[in-house]
Amino acid sequence: MPRGGRIVLVGAGPGAPDLITIRGAKWLARADVVVYDRLVDESLLSLAPRSARLVYAGKAPGRHAMSQEEINSLLVDEAQHGKTVVRLKGGDPLFYGRGEEECAYALARGVPCEVVPGVPSPFGAAAEHLIPLAGRGYSSTVAFAPGRLAGGRPLPREKIHSLLSAADTLVVLMGASRAREILEAAAEARGPGEAAVIVERATLPGSRILAGSIESLLGEAARVSPPAIIVVGGAARWRIDHAGFF
Amino acid sequence: MPRGGRIVLVGAGPGAPDLITIRGAKWLARADVVVYDRLVDESLLSLAPRSARLVYAGKAPGRHAMSQEEINSLLVDEAQHGKTVVRLKGGDPLFYGRGEEECAYALARGVPCEVVPGVPSPFGAAAEHLIPLAGRGYSSTVAFAPGRLAGGRPLPREKIHSLLSAADTLVVLMGASRAREILEAAAEARGPGEAAVIVERATLPGSRILAGSIESLLGEAARVSPPAIIVVGGAARWRIDHAGFF
Repeated sequence: MPRGGRIVLVGAGPGAPDLITIRGAKWLARADVVVYDRLVDESLLSLAPRSARLVYAGKAPGRHAMSQEEINSLLVDEAQHGKTVVRLKGGDPLFYGRGEEECAYALARGVPCEVVPGVPSPFGAAAEHLIPLAGRGYSSTVAFAPGRLAGGRPLPREKIHSLLSAADTLVVLMGASRAREILEAAAEARGPGEAAVIVERATLPGSRILAGSIESLLGEAARVSPPAIIVVGGAARWRIDHAGFF
Repeated sequence: MPRGGRIVLVGAGPGAPDLITIRGAKWLARADVVVYDRLVDESLLSLAPRSARLVYAGKAPGRHAMSQEEINSLLVDEAQHGKTVVRLKGGDPLFYGRGEEECAYALARGVPCEVVPGVPSPFGAAAEHLIPLAGRGYSSTVAFAPGRLAGGRPLPREKIHSLLSAADTLVVLMGASRAREILEAAAEARGPGEAAVIVERATLPGSRILAGSIESLLGEAARVSPPAIIVVGGAARWRIDHAGFF
């Protein structure tokens, strides 16, 4: 194997291109190959050298421009030819990002792989709309769940109940298409008056926040578009209690 | 009030100075005043103009160089004099960072306040040591808790039990001084063979990982130094199952 080949998984952050880390931007500037996902702002690609090969890996919901196996093979193949391969992923590579699969595949084949963290999308939404996800008193504990589990199975109502029973705040990622069912399950756990917030397109143009009681958001739930996060409980309540300031 | 004064809360990220976002670095470069915490790498201060006023706000455990009220007043006072005030905080400002208190105080007084998110410390630890905090199959859901709740009260055993009953993975921040009690409670919930990882000084020089069964870590727990995070469950198991590659 030629010397110097490596894979660097870089978290692009929640959406806005200037929310990537300095380390991530530096790796992009040194890339021979950039393999990027759908949720990555394409202006980030201009940080790569003009000579870099740019590969779109897709990952739209329900269809993949490349399968995970194809991505794994491409990353390793390029690195084995001595290339610096940047794998650019939305949010953080190890937070619902499958970065671990790509690194494990590479490391098992003797290819160096490192990870540059990114700001996960809920934290981008939180900063943009002042939704403090965790803090003493109003949200000591916070849980994260995806709208769908392995195999595409919807997040079960019972799981929403147990997470809202254990943690002060629940954040559901990738839940746009099931927003109504998620809110209904949350209302069963906390009552329809519990506070909830939905953020669409966090940190991107057209970002939108819906905030209110769970009950008041149910009517809007059918019109929520991805990418979106749903926040129920303490953090949402803090946001609503202080909304007079915004 | 002179025009143009504002407060910008900037997340410095998990520790290494190049893990700040580009947006955060740009605000530092425009700062008239920087108010920074103990866990912030001081090399970041060199991004500020030479003329900037640098104020250390402390926040060592158990003692504060400045009280929260003093910090709030300072931020607002400088902004009301037309200054661009950067409040630089470790990790993310709204994730156990009390940034929301500072922004709410400012906004209530008509002072603009915005938040630039940062990579939260557990995500820095995860990237550095390949601990995938959330992903399909092994850690669909993840919960975060602090080692101590409001008023300094230790995170109760029952809370650790319920979080580990609801979520696949539990991450405890700021738990170094109580690592043994936290691991013991986790063992009650999951059994002593459950996987656990402790990361000290994530992304900083001297970063260290301890990984194994809860039982195997109990003997080390008394020697854990802050800053540290404790990970129990699915994400830790993934890390250990794949440790042969590292």
